[in-house]
Amino acid sequence: MRPSGRTASQIRPISFTRQFTAHAEGSVLVEFGNTKVLCTASVEEGVPRFMKGQGKGWITAEYGMLPRSTHTRNDREAARGKQAGRTMEIQRLIGRALRAAVDLKLLGENTITFDCDVIQADGGTRTAAITGACVALCDALNFMRAKGMIKTNPLKYMVAAVSVGIYKGEPVADLEYVEDSAAETDMNVVMTETGKLIEIQGTAEAEPFSFEEMQAMLALAKDAIREIVDEQKRVLA
Amino acid sequence: MRPSGRTASQIRPISFTRQFTAHAEGSVLVEFGNTKVLCTASVEEGVPRFMKGQGKGWITAEYGMLPRSTHTRNDREAARGKQAGRTMEIQRLIGRALRAAVDLKLLGENTITFDCDVIQADGGTRTAAITGACVALCDALNFMRAKGMIKTNPLKYMVAAVSVGIYKGEPVADLEYVEDSAAETDMNVVMTETGKLIEIQGTAEAEPFSFEEMQAMLALAKDAIREIVDEQKRVLA
Amino acid sequence: MRPSGRTASQIRPISFTRQFTAHAEGSVLVEFGNTKVLCTASVEEGVPRFMKGQGKGWITAEYGMLPRSTHTRNDREAARGKQAGRTMEIQRLIGRALRAAVDLKLLGENTITFDCDVIQADGGTRTAAITGACVALCDALNFMRAKGMIKTNPLKYMVAAVSVGIYKGEPVADLEYVEDSAAETDMNVVMTETGKLIEIQGTAEAEPFSFEEMQAMLALAKDAIREIVDEQKRVLA
Amino acid sequence: MRPSGRTASQIRPISFTRQFTAHAEGSVLVEFGNTKVLCTASVEEGVPRFMKGQGKGWITAEYGMLPRSTHTRNDREAARGKQAGRTMEIQRLIGRALRAAVDLKLLGENTITFDCDVIQADGGTRTAAITGACVALCDALNFMRAKGMIKTNPLKYMVAAVSVGIYKGEPVADLEYVEDSAAETDMNVVMTETGKLIEIQGTAEAEPFSFEEMQAMLALAKDAIREIVDEQKRVLA
Amino acid sequence: MRPSGRTASQIRPISFTRQFTAHAEGSVLVEFGNTKVLCTASVEEGVPRFMKGQGKGWITAEYGMLPRSTHTRNDREAARGKQAGRTMEIQRLIGRALRAAVDLKLLGENTITFDCDVIQADGGTRTAAITGACVALCDALNFMRAKGMIKTNPLKYMVAAVSVGIYKGEPVADLEYVEDSAAETDMNVVMTETGKLIEIQGTAEAEPFSFEEMQAMLALAKDAIREIVDEQKRVLA
Amino acid sequence: MRPSGRTASQIRPISFTRQFTAHAEGSVLVEFGNTKVLCTASVEEGVPRFMKGQGKGWITAEYGMLPRSTHTRNDREAARGKQAGRTMEIQRLIGRALRAAVDLKLLGENTITFDCDVIQADGGTRTAAITGACVALCDALNFMRAKGMIKTNPLKYMVAAVSVGIYKGEPVADLEYVEDSAAETDMNVVMTETGKLIEIQGTAEAEPFSFEEMQAMLALAKDAIREIVDEQKRVLA
Repeated sequence: MRPSGRTASQIRPISFTRQFTAHAEGSVLVEFGNTKVLCTASVEEGVPRFMKGQGKGWITAEYGMLPRSTHTRNDREAARGKQAGRTMEIQRLIGRALRAAVDLKLLGENTITFDCDVIQADGGTRTAAITGACVALCDALNFMRAKGMIKTNPLKYMVAAVSVGIYKGEPVADLEYVEDSAAETDMNVVMTETGKLIEIQGTAEAEPFSFEEMQAMLALAKDAIREIVDEQKRVLA
Repeated sequence: MRPSGRTASQIRPISFTRQFTAHAEGSVLVEFGNTKVLCTASVEEGVPRFMKGQGKGWITAEYGMLPRSTHTRNDREAARGKQAGRTMEIQRLIGRALRAAVDLKLLGENTITFDCDVIQADGGTRTAAITGACVALCDALNFMRAKGMIKTNPLKYMVAAVSVGIYKGEPVADLEYVEDSAAETDMNVVMTETGKLIEIQGTAEAEPFSFEEMQAMLALAKDAIREIVDEQKRVLA
Repeated sequence: MRPSGRTASQIRPISFTRQFTAHAEGSVLVEFGNTKVLCTASVEEGVPRFMKGQGKGWITAEYGMLPRSTHTRNDREAARGKQAGRTMEIQRLIGRALRAAVDLKLLGENTITFDCDVIQADGGTRTAAITGACVALCDALNFMRAKGMIKTNPLKYMVAAVSVGIYKGEPVADLEYVEDSAAETDMNVVMTETGKLIEIQGTAEAEPFSFEEMQAMLALAKDAIREIVDEQKRVLA
Repeated sequence: MRPSGRTASQIRPISFTRQFTAHAEGSVLVEFGNTKVLCTASVEEGVPRFMKGQGKGWITAEYGMLPRSTHTRNDREAARGKQAGRTMEIQRLIGRALRAAVDLKLLGENTITFDCDVIQADGGTRTAAITGACVALCDALNFMRAKGMIKTNPLKYMVAAVSVGIYKGEPVADLEYVEDSAAETDMNVVMTETGKLIEIQGTAEAEPFSFEEMQAMLALAKDAIREIVDEQKRVLA
Repeated sequence: MRPSGRTASQIRPISFTRQFTAHAEGSVLVEFGNTKVLCTASVEEGVPRFMKGQGKGWITAEYGMLPRSTHTRNDREAARGKQAGRTMEIQRLIGRALRAAVDLKLLGENTITFDCDVIQADGGTRTAAITGACVALCDALNFMRAKGMIKTNPLKYMVAAVSVGIYKGEPVADLEYVEDSAAETDMNVVMTETGKLIEIQGTAEAEPFSFEEMQAMLALAKDAIREIVDEQKRVLA
Repeated sequence: MRPSGRTASQIRPISFTRQFTAHAEGSVLVEFGNTKVLCTASVEEGVPRFMKGQGKGWITAEYGMLPRSTHTRNDREAARGKQAGRTMEIQRLIGRALRAAVDLKLLGENTITFDCDVIQADGGTRTAAITGACVALCDALNFMRAKGMIKTNPLKYMVAAVSVGIYKGEPVADLEYVEDSAAETDMNVVMTETGKLIEIQGTAEAEPFSFEEMQAMLALAKDAIREIVDEQKRVLA
């Protein structure tokens, strides 16, 4: 029934390429099927002004799509002179998810900036970004420990994300673009490796959804994220 | 236990003042306790370019906070020359919620623009905005019918919203500012009068939350929204 | 002869609602007939960089119109990404008028920022804003004295403003929108309670005006402002 | 008593260099003493969208200061990415003054755009700009008649402007920079050659001013403008 | 003597990966050693307004660096709200180079937009971008012929580019970052496969350079570009 | 054969008017035929943040065209809210050229900012700007020596620039607008008085150019610049 022939709960093949680029302290190309996002983590000493003197670190994220990562070309945001509302919404979400994964006190007065740039889009770019950035985060924290910038690992738990939705009346996991654009409901779920929720954002695109549908989607998300976290850990091992 | 002495499920006194200002086709001052938002609906013939020729209408929303609606003054976004990410996120949410309430085909090629301006903020401004805007929407649709712009009422169902959260370990409904800023989890829920979900956005501010906590919050939201819809209907009667 | 039936020198009913909102140190809703402007005064310690070390305070003002305060909706300036020339002109005028009312030395190195937001427009929004802001200024100065931020009251004199103009060949006071948009000449006058001029801005919209017409308009302004100052004092008593 | 040794009513030497640059339909370098402003008039067929189909023409103006036209260098507005409030205020004033000079119906659906760029500033740049632009306007109208774009001269009357003020307690005409920056009151007056007022903008910089002082300033302005119009006519003869 | 041990005329290993991403009509990852640039060509029917009705096509280019493509993170231009001067300079150069390669008449009223995004930077990103974009251009033109958008191949000649410079007093070809940042002179050369010049931009970073040095650099560029064009042709074969 | 009747190597009459405006430390109106550019040098103590503490000075440049310096009016960049790519490209070029002329160590921690504003354009504005700015630089350095800001003259050599090109198949020097817009190739050359190259930027506008054509253009540039430097020295003597 799904365009790809996948079962309702089946996620796309996922992969993480660590050290995809040379300069960043963490650099991961994450792929969920044809969705490809480059996630880099940049470590800098110090924190932004509003955080100074609290003895805590800061984590922030920026998101962008290459203009032709999509089926038809989108305007370059740098050329238009401003980021779209969707972009800001997504990068705020990524930042919150990663801050939730880290004990900012243990991070010390250091900043990690994530850049999640979509090389190729086929649905689920924001959840792929969170998932890939968490792997880059681990690499960046290793770098910091090796440099003596931190003593204790500030990671509280791995964080991963997936999109779920109602497609042709059925709850499905990890929607690709053709499903996403036809879905009745679209929900992004961010969870910890311990199975708890960090963020949930569900939107009725066409028809409102019932509590039962939401439960079904959440169950799919939980299973998918367990699988995704396993893969994160495998690649980091 | 709550700063206001309210019970966990108790929402603040809410009120709607219709025709709060004179020029708009719908103009409602909505109050949730000390949170006060002016919601106006502006009706215009025609639709934006990307919608032309589809025989459908369009609904969009903008949101702003008066600089001193808050405890300390915020920069005026018009003076800074751009809207904050939070603002864009909220106005996109309001727009989606109201579009979900309306059959855009029955609206014809007309546009309704909502302006939700926070006069005084005490938590829950975005959910108050959606709730008040839905009342302004009804007034605007009445105006359109009186003018002959539409024949059939395109409203599918009333829409209302409320924030729920985990405060000091307990699920509570309709958080005010002091609760909101200390909450472990914050969730905004938009529902139809028929008890279905239009949008759900939950964020772990400090600690991740469990599926059980989410269920408890949703149950609170459902009851609160039923109460709020009753009040919307009462004031429109 | 005037659309409202007023005599040439008759101003609209005016009212001031103090403490209209809860957070600002001064918060006044001023109404000139159907023109309603919310004027808040925000007190902060310190002064902008260009004023530092002079032992003097600073007063500044910002002005905005809610998008649907007018007959047809205006673009939101925050969304367009810049303030219109008219907005900048008006907020500069408000700032100058209020600075003229205060001995900045006695204010100490503190800043008062006024936000004048038009809730409903029916002509004369800038003069209403100045007039209402002066009442909010008094409340803010009282707050500062109560907090020990200042010792002596730095207010030199109450300041108020009114628009006058030539409408259908006759000088009239306090033009409402229908008059304003048809007026041959439009003049805004800011005066002290002592009957002296702080600012005068007269513009021939259609035909140039004579010195005699200007005298007549000024005489109307003087009387109107005397009345307005009385009302300011009454509400502050 | 004046720094320049001028009497209170004495204006600076003024001059107009027509055809100062080659491309514009009108191009005038106007000098009021050391204040030098290049005023060009650019004629284009057609009118902006909001004027279309009314059978009327349009006149607009832009103003700028070269970054080092002043004693210390000012930021280039193009580099900062926005025009200052002062700039917008001034260019709106120039536009209104020139529109007042012309019968827009007789102009036909054509647009004249004035660019007033300050080459060297020594006080009174906005009044010099209006005065010089009016000469450029005459040249542009001659061009239009020669090209057959208009049949009847749409000029209603010459327009000129001057600044007056209270300096060391005395009313003086045509303030140069050192006077302007020390003046108690500063007033810009725009008049027709027939001695009527088009615009008056008076501001108390330090102390409020009396009605008598205003009369004295206006009398100075009237005499000065008569002199200036004579010079405009001489150079156009 | 060169940090990489290369000889003066030796260029880095270069490679082109065609169809690097799925959606664009041409998509090439070009690598000059560690410099990696993704070049996509997007084909659209129609031309920008200023080109309409001339029966000619249009080619334009945009350039960007991912924030962490460099040793230390650069601000994201989309977030800063404007493109740097360097970015604009480079994308104008790329656009000119590709327009020179194509007979715009034979292209018909179609537009090809190139996006050159630097994934990893190690010197020579602009010359790599031109070189890779020319391969993407060939793929895009093939697409257009297959779709019947064009009949004749509008490519006039392959275009390629290389940087040359004076490093420690010696002319060298294809500078990598460590050389580039220490070079006395830096020159970018764009040539056709026929050995003619399309663009030459040479800059003395430290000391001015002689005509003889320029000849030596040009000779290096000519040889390098011959080699690069061979590789372009090989990968397109 | 050239529209002006000039020989291929003949440059236009050039002139420099020093102290063209009163306030700047260097102020030169440079004319190449009908191209007129006002170049001012503004001296300030201190350097931008990124240069602090290095014991070196800084030189930067900005460029602008008055809106009606050209045949048809161009938008004012300040009003559009951003500088065009061409503008940025040119001002970066001017800055580099002038920095190359000066020993920044001998300049001390001082900044010279050049403003090159085109009063009238007839081709070659950027090369005229560099040439005129170098004269203004000498005046500014004299000012600095007189004020005791520097002890040794930091000027390494005079710098001048000229455009050369291929027009109707022939290499020509110092193209005016009608030639420039029809030229097959356009090249800007910046040289020192000692005959060495600082910058060379050649662009094939229509057809690629050969190495021989480039040599011919360079030879013309060299002769022209020798003549121009003579004139710079004459006017500074």
